[in-house]
Amino acid sequence: MATEHPRALIPALCRQFYDLGWCTGTGGGIAIRADGIIYMAPSGVQKERISEADIFELDLDGQVLKAPATPGLKLTECSPLFFNAFRQRGAGAVIHSHSIDALMATVHFETVFRVSHVEMIKGLRGYGYYDTVEIPIIPNTARECELADSMAEAIDANPQADAVLVQRHGIYVWGKDWQQAKTQTECLDYLFRYADRMIQSGRSPVDVP
Amino acid sequence: MATEHPRALIPALCRQFYDLGWCTGTGGGIAIRADGIIYMAPSGVQKERISEADIFELDLDGQVLKAPATPGLKLTECSPLFFNAFRQRGAGAVIHSHSIDALMATVHFETVFRVSHVEMIKGLRGYGYYDTVEIPIIPNTARECELADSMAEAIDANPQADAVLVQRHGIYVWGKDWQQAKTQTECLDYLFRYADRMIQSGRSPVDVP
Amino acid sequence: MATEHPRALIPALCRQFYDLGWCTGTGGGIAIRADGIIYMAPSGVQKERISEADIFELDLDGQVLKAPATPGLKLTECSPLFFNAFRQRGAGAVIHSHSIDALMATVHFETVFRVSHVEMIKGLRGYGYYDTVEIPIIPNTARECELADSMAEAIDANPQADAVLVQRHGIYVWGKDWQQAKTQTECLDYLFRYADRMIQSGRSPVDVP
Amino acid sequence: MATEHPRALIPALCRQFYDLGWCTGTGGGIAIRADGIIYMAPSGVQKERISEADIFELDLDGQVLKAPATPGLKLTECSPLFFNAFRQRGAGAVIHSHSIDALMATVHFETVFRVSHVEMIKGLRGYGYYDTVEIPIIPNTARECELADSMAEAIDANPQADAVLVQRHGIYVWGKDWQQAKTQTECLDYLFRYADRMIQSGRSPVDVP
Repeated sequence: MATEHPRALIPALCRQFYDLGWCTGTGGGIAIRADGIIYMAPSGVQKERISEADIFELDLDGQVLKAPATPGLKLTECSPLFFNAFRQRGAGAVIHSHSIDALMATVHFETVFRVSHVEMIKGLRGYGYYDTVEIPIIPNTARECELADSMAEAIDANPQADAVLVQRHGIYVWGKDWQQAKTQTECLDYLFRYADRMIQSGRSPVDVP
Repeated sequence: MATEHPRALIPALCRQFYDLGWCTGTGGGIAIRADGIIYMAPSGVQKERISEADIFELDLDGQVLKAPATPGLKLTECSPLFFNAFRQRGAGAVIHSHSIDALMATVHFETVFRVSHVEMIKGLRGYGYYDTVEIPIIPNTARECELADSMAEAIDANPQADAVLVQRHGIYVWGKDWQQAKTQTECLDYLFRYADRMIQSGRSPVDVP
Repeated sequence: MATEHPRALIPALCRQFYDLGWCTGTGGGIAIRADGIIYMAPSGVQKERISEADIFELDLDGQVLKAPATPGLKLTECSPLFFNAFRQRGAGAVIHSHSIDALMATVHFETVFRVSHVEMIKGLRGYGYYDTVEIPIIPNTARECELADSMAEAIDANPQADAVLVQRHGIYVWGKDWQQAKTQTECLDYLFRYADRMIQSGRSPVDVP
Repeated sequence: MATEHPRALIPALCRQFYDLGWCTGTGGGIAIRADGIIYMAPSGVQKERISEADIFELDLDGQVLKAPATPGLKLTECSPLFFNAFRQRGAGAVIHSHSIDALMATVHFETVFRVSHVEMIKGLRGYGYYDTVEIPIIPNTARECELADSMAEAIDANPQADAVLVQRHGIYVWGKDWQQAKTQTECLDYLFRYADRMIQSGRSPVDVP
């Protein structure tokens, strides 16, 4: 349980997220806030191969304080979306996942993902086993930065949710620190798999046992 | 086949269980008894990242003998459930898994999971290939510690089973030592996948070839 | 491509087979012949954790030449089944897998598994893309050693096949060396997955494109 | 993001592709162009175990400049297919994958794979979220080298595609460098899984949300 610096932690978590299928094809990533600085993985690179020298440092207004030591890297277009969670919720970390199970959740559900009566719901802030979790789904756009406004609205309109699904795209999940962001992403991913299997079995994911 | 101390073994097994999908989202875990001491993984942490300094030591009455060297860690609410198996069955190790295949077994079956005529059944204590395995399913509760009594009853009522499924939650599996607990958890997980695939194919998991 | 001694190779391959789902729950394993000695993984142990000190050495009549340095290990009941392939086919290595896809192949097919028109068929000795692969399926028995005679008959009756499926159990696959045994096991496992997905899609695995 | 020499990179990528299910059973592989030399993995070997000493070096006409240090290795029959992409498209790297999801795409679609309205489409050169990706499918042949002409025709006829699917076989994907080739293979593999899940759900992969 050693506390690792975000520069070391982000590459390690990206390798893990790659193995989980959250950031293949250069998609997905993570941003972590520590001591007033936002640390962010670069864009368009093999996420399972990044190193400490590839991390961007930004201030809380989204301006780059320190570019990566590795030349030629670009800041991700997700940056404004990560900052929505940092600013509107005071998040300590934000994860963007392209998990195919999150994607399929946006196919099975139109505007809101709903699930109830599963133990893993208890891993989400403020929810208990008997509650119905609701995660808003926003439409996808041609460019990632164009999602910023509709994501911000969805965050405001759903104060109980620490995540926003993007249709046919993936999910943004945050938490007070990287541990909570990761825990909530894992719990949601499990709940998306559960929902898919319930639907394949002709049942509903809000079905009560 | 080196004998490893539970303090080293629990972190290694938790990493392996994480990769198997048994303890994502901080759920799941393992407790091992050795020389009159119960060693237990902490609660609410990234299970694939724990180290020797994070392990609790308890006596056989469930009292903490030694808190982890790492500050701020909490004993899991599963503790009384682990102790059911230690006390009622003299278990040497207990595994708690959130495997989604175990979860789906509690959806497909109402009160008892049943499977027959699969080789992996022979990995379960006291069962042969032609037998029908029966694993009891208890209802889930708002808090994990509230499961203790119904789990204790299910253990008493099912002396042939070394496991109790918890509805929409997961499973507790034990054995005379960690090897048997792990073997039986792996065999049951395989049998849950088999049952799911049989049901998806329009067949029954107690179907005789 | 370093040539590794079977004592080092068997533990490494068992770890790999565990990750592939071929030898969980202590099931499955591998035996390799080299310089007139048969090297064999022990029975009933965590296959992903064995070491060089755990390997049995047998002569070509199946007698133990050298027990493992680790005390208390047992020779597998599969031993006579491995020896069927060593004796009847002059195999250099035999793999026993509990892959759930092999198991499901024995559910979907009654007595013979058949597949055709898939590139991976070319990885099987003597088969081309347009051929129909046939793998015999024998009934399972209460004890593994009781399979020896029916497996021997199936080997004799199917000279074109380097594998025998065991109903609701798994598969035995061999080759002239460990590389061919492993290649053929991987190709068959892929073909079993293909067959399952074709059947789930309402198609036949011998369907011609 | 260290630049690695193709001799070191090819074994590392082959291990990764093996874990992804792209090159089991000795199938699949990768060729990389650097400084006027084509580096290529050998044929018919355990792809997750190759080392620097196993790599072929060829000139741009497909002639072997330098055989591997390891004796007895054979050049892959895929070689002319890799060279189609090097010559017709000036590719910097070509990946051949036996992914079962790519295979199933050639079952679900007859002559052209089509998918639309998925974020991962943006990982493919020249495509946006709202576009319909089209990947040509060519019939398989008894020997891999016989695919060369029909693959060359498919490349000419589909200038917008950086990939050719081979019926009941797999896929060839290329890019200006190994990063783009790998990114595009990962994105396509994700899109094949998506298409399969949409079809299993009774929907179409070109369905508009």
